[in-house]
Amino acid sequence: MRAVKQRVYEIIEVAGPGDRASRAFDIFLITLIALNALALIVGTVQDIYRLAPKAFDAFEAASVITFSVEYLLRMWCCTLDPRYSHPLWGRLRFLFSLLSIVDLLAVAPFYLVPLLGLHDLDLRFFRAVRLLARVARLGRYSSGVRTLVQVLGDKRSELMTVVLVLVVLLVMASSLMFFAENEAQPDKFADIPQAMWWSIITLTTVGYGDVFPVTTWGRIVAGMIAIVGIGLFALPAGILGSGFLEQIQRRPPVTRICPHCGEEIQE
Amino acid sequence: MRAVKQRVYEIIEVAGPGDRASRAFDIFLITLIALNALALIVGTVQDIYRLAPKAFDAFEAASVITFSVEYLLRMWCCTLDPRYSHPLWGRLRFLFSLLSIVDLLAVAPFYLVPLLGLHDLDLRFFRAVRLLARVARLGRYSSGVRTLVQVLGDKRSELMTVVLVLVVLLVMASSLMFFAENEAQPDKFADIPQAMWWSIITLTTVGYGDVFPVTTWGRIVAGMIAIVGIGLFALPAGILGSGFLEQIQRRPPVTRICPHCGEEIQE
Amino acid sequence: MRAVKQRVYEIIEVAGPGDRASRAFDIFLITLIALNALALIVGTVQDIYRLAPKAFDAFEAASVITFSVEYLLRMWCCTLDPRYSHPLWGRLRFLFSLLSIVDLLAVAPFYLVPLLGLHDLDLRFFRAVRLLARVARLGRYSSGVRTLVQVLGDKRSELMTVVLVLVVLLVMASSLMFFAENEAQPDKFADIPQAMWWSIITLTTVGYGDVFPVTTWGRIVAGMIAIVGIGLFALPAGILGSGFLEQIQRRPPVTRICPHCGEEIQE
Amino acid sequence: MRAVKQRVYEIIEVAGPGDRASRAFDIFLITLIALNALALIVGTVQDIYRLAPKAFDAFEAASVITFSVEYLLRMWCCTLDPRYSHPLWGRLRFLFSLLSIVDLLAVAPFYLVPLLGLHDLDLRFFRAVRLLARVARLGRYSSGVRTLVQVLGDKRSELMTVVLVLVVLLVMASSLMFFAENEAQPDKFADIPQAMWWSIITLTTVGYGDVFPVTTWGRIVAGMIAIVGIGLFALPAGILGSGFLEQIQRRPPVTRICPHCGEEIQE
Repeated sequence: MRAVKQRVYEIIEVAGPGDRASRAFDIFLITLIALNALALIVGTVQDIYRLAPKAFDAFEAASVITFSVEYLLRMWCCTLDPRYSHPLWGRLRFLFSLLSIVDLLAVAPFYLVPLLGLHDLDLRFFRAVRLLARVARLGRYSSGVRTLVQVLGDKRSELMTVVLVLVVLLVMASSLMFFAENEAQPDKFADIPQAMWWSIITLTTVGYGDVFPVTTWGRIVAGMIAIVGIGLFALPAGILGSGFLEQIQRRPPVTRICPHCGEEIQE
Repeated sequence: MRAVKQRVYEIIEVAGPGDRASRAFDIFLITLIALNALALIVGTVQDIYRLAPKAFDAFEAASVITFSVEYLLRMWCCTLDPRYSHPLWGRLRFLFSLLSIVDLLAVAPFYLVPLLGLHDLDLRFFRAVRLLARVARLGRYSSGVRTLVQVLGDKRSELMTVVLVLVVLLVMASSLMFFAENEAQPDKFADIPQAMWWSIITLTTVGYGDVFPVTTWGRIVAGMIAIVGIGLFALPAGILGSGFLEQIQRRPPVTRICPHCGEEIQE
Repeated sequence: MRAVKQRVYEIIEVAGPGDRASRAFDIFLITLIALNALALIVGTVQDIYRLAPKAFDAFEAASVITFSVEYLLRMWCCTLDPRYSHPLWGRLRFLFSLLSIVDLLAVAPFYLVPLLGLHDLDLRFFRAVRLLARVARLGRYSSGVRTLVQVLGDKRSELMTVVLVLVVLLVMASSLMFFAENEAQPDKFADIPQAMWWSIITLTTVGYGDVFPVTTWGRIVAGMIAIVGIGLFALPAGILGSGFLEQIQRRPPVTRICPHCGEEIQE
Repeated sequence: MRAVKQRVYEIIEVAGPGDRASRAFDIFLITLIALNALALIVGTVQDIYRLAPKAFDAFEAASVITFSVEYLLRMWCCTLDPRYSHPLWGRLRFLFSLLSIVDLLAVAPFYLVPLLGLHDLDLRFFRAVRLLARVARLGRYSSGVRTLVQVLGDKRSELMTVVLVLVVLLVMASSLMFFAENEAQPDKFADIPQAMWWSIITLTTVGYGDVFPVTTWGRIVAGMIAIVGIGLFALPAGILGSGFLEQIQRRPPVTRICPHCGEEIQE
C-alpha cells in the first residue's frame, strides 16, 4: 500500500527525469485541461454549442470526474510531502493551500449547481469561477505564468505604494472632472465614482470615447491631467512588465573575483 | 502651560517612536480624513445621498469642527518649531506655508459658503476645493505621495524645458490641423485653440474619437504628427513616472563580504 | 557556358564592390519591384485605376515576366552556391528556401488565376499574396528589414514565453468581461471569442470605442484589467522594438588613443 | 558707419554678457513674436476677432514692419559674420540659410497676399506658413527647441532606417486589412491608401474609432498586427523622445585618466 501511494504521488507530481509514466500523466492532464478550457470558451458561442450540446455536456462531465479523482488522489498522497506529513493537520493545511483551492474551484461548481437550484445570476458566477480556475490550473504548468506570479509577489511593496498614489490621483482627477463637467453632461459625469471611469480610461490612454469632456474648462483640466498623469498610471503595468521580462531574460549567475584574495565568489 | 503646549505639539506632529498617544492621534486623524473624503465622494451619488442627507451633513460638520480645532492647535503650537519660533512673524510664516494653506482650504469653504450666500457655480468651486484639499491632506501621510511631490520638485527644470517645447509643438500641430481641416469640419476645428484639444488627445494617444481629420491632407499631416510627436508628449509623464520609480526602488548601497578572506567589498 | 553562368550568378546576386553591371541590375530590380508594389497599391484606388486600366495591366504583365525570368535564372545558377551545388537535390533545396518561396509567390498568382477560373474571394486572396510577396522582396534589399527578421529569430524563445502568458491573460480577461457584460450587451459580448476582441483592443490601449463595458461591475473589472494587463501586452511589441533599436545602434567597439602617450585604450 | 554696423550687429545677435541694449532688444523681439503668434492664434476664434478686427490687423501690420526692418538690418550686417563676409556672395548664402528663410516666410505673406489677389485656399496656405514661421522663430530662442532640432539631426540615420521599415510594415498591414475588410466595409477600406489611415491610427495606439475591422478575419489580423507592430511604430517617437531627454539631462564632461601615463583626458 505504501509503495502504491509513493508511486501515485510520483506520477501525480511534475515528472522527474526519466519517469515516463509520470510524464505521460502530465501531458494527458495538460491536454485535458486545455481541451476542457477550449470547450468552455467555444461552448459560449451559441451557434457552435447548439450543434452538439450533449457532446459538450458529456465532455464536461468526463473532465470533472477525472479532475475529481485527481483531486482525491492528491489529497490522499499529500502526506508524502514533508510540509503536509501529518495525516489530519497536514491534509487540512494542504486543503487550504492556494493550488488546492484552485483545484477545488475547478470542480466544485459542477456538483453545487444542481444541488442548490441556482438562479441565472449565480449560475453565471459559478461558470466564471469554473473557467478561471481551469485556466489557472493550466497556467501552473507554464513556466512563464509561474514567473509572472512570482514577479507579482516580489514587487508587492512597490505595487502597493504605486496603487496608493494612483488612488489619490484618481480621486483628484475624478473630482476635478466631476465639478467641471457635471453640469454640462449630468448623465456621463453624474457623480465622482462615475467620473473615475473617465479617469481610468483616459489615464491608461485607452480612450474609448464613450465619456469625454465637452466644456472648455473640462478640456483644459483633462489635457493637463492626461499629460502629467499618464506616466504614473503606466507604473503598475510597467513594474509587472519589466519585472517579468527581467526574469525570463535572466542570465546564468556571474562569477566575480574578490580583489583582496583573488578567489571566486558565486553571486 | 508650557508643558501642555509641548505635549500637544508632540501629539499633533507625526508620532515619534514609542509615543502611543501621538500615534493614536495620527491614526484617528487619518481615518477621519479618509472617511470624510469617502463621504464627500459617495455623497455626490444622488441615490446614496438621498438615503440619509442629514447623516452626511452631520458627519461633515463634525469633521470640519475637528479639523478646525486641529488647525487652531497647530497655529498655537507652531512656535515650538524653530523655523516658526517668533510669536507673530513665525506664526504668519507658518500660516502661509503650503501645508497650512491646504489645511485652511479644507475647512474654510464650510464657514464661507453660508456667509456669502453663494451662487451654484461658486458653490461647486468651493466643494471642489474642499475635496481636493482633504485628499491632499490624506496624501501628506503617504510616503508615496510625499515622494511624488519631491520628484516634481527635483525634476522642475527638466519639466519646464519639456513643457516649453511641447507648447511650441502643440501650437504647430494645431495650426497645421486647423488650416487643413477647418473648411471640412468648421464645427470641430473652428479655431486653433479648439484644434489644440485634438492635438493633446492625439499626441497622448488617448484618441477618444470625438475629433479626427477627415480630409486626405488632414490625415497625412495627422499621421506624421502622431508618429513623430507621441514620443515628445510622453516625456513629462515619463520623467515623473521614472523619477518616482527610481525613488521608491532606491536601496541603501550594499556592502558585501568576501566569503574567502572576510574583507568588505564596496559594490 | 560555365563562364556565362558564373557571370549571370554574379549579376543576380547582391553586387560585389566595383561590379557595375551587377550594381545596375540590383538598382533596376529594386526600382521595378518598388514601382510594381506602388502600382498594385495605387491600382486599388478605383478612380485612378479607371484612368488607365490597360497601362496598369500591361505594367503588371511586364513586371511578372521580368520577375519570372529572374526566378528561372536564379534556379539555373543556384548550383554555383556551395549550399545548393547538387544539380537536382541542391536545386530542390533552393526551391524550398524561404526567399525562393517568396519569389515564387510573387509571380505564381499571375499564371494561376486565369488557369483556375477563380471566384472573387480566392482572387482577393491571390492578390493579397502577390502584393505581400512583392513588398517582402523589396524588404530583402533593406538592411533594416533584414535586421528586424533577425531580431524576430533571436528573440524567438522570449516571444513564445510571453505569447503563452498573454493567451492565458487574454482568456481570463475575456471570460471575466463575458460573464460581467454578456447580459447587458448580448450583441457585443455575445461569447468569449468576441470578448477577446475587447481584450486585445483595450490591453494594447488602442481603444476604438466599438466595444466597452457599460455595467458597474464590468467597468470595475475592466479598469483593474487595464491597469495591470497593459504592461504585459506591451511586452512583445517592446521586445521587438528594443531588440531592433539595439541592433541598428550597435557600433563597433571604439579604440581611443591617449593624446599624452599615444597608446591605445580599449573602452 | 563701420562702427554703427558693428553695434547694430551686436544688438541684433543673441546678447553677449553685460550688453544691456542687446539684451533689451532680444527681450523686446521675443515678446513681440510671442504676442504676435498669440494674436494669430486667438484671431482664429471668430468671436474674439470680431470684437476688434482693426486692432488685430493693426498689430499684425506693426509686427510685420518691425520684423521686416529687423530682416533688412540682418541682411545689411551679416557680412560681419566671417561665414558670410563677401558683400554679394556672402549675403546670398545668408539669404538662403535656414534661419533667414524662416524669417522671410514670417513676413513675405503680408506683402504677397494683396499683390497676388489670392483665392481662399491659397490665403489659408499663406496664413499657415506665416504662423508656423513665427512659432519657429520663437523656437530659435528656446534652448529646448534648439536641442530638439539638434537631436533630429544626430539621429537622422537611425530615423531613416526606422521609417523605411515602418513603410514596409505599413504597406503590409494596410494590404492585409484592405483584402480582409474591403468587402464588408467598402466605404472605410475602399483602397489600400485609405487602409493606411487605419494602420497608422491603430499602430500608434491612438484608436479614434472612426475605422475598425468588423469581420472575424479582419479582427484576428488586426489583433496580431497590433500586438506585434505597436513596438515598431513607437520607435521614431521613442528615438526622438529619449534622445531629447538625454541631451537636457547631460552631465558636465567626465575627465578620465589614461592608464598608461596617468594624465587626464577630456572626453
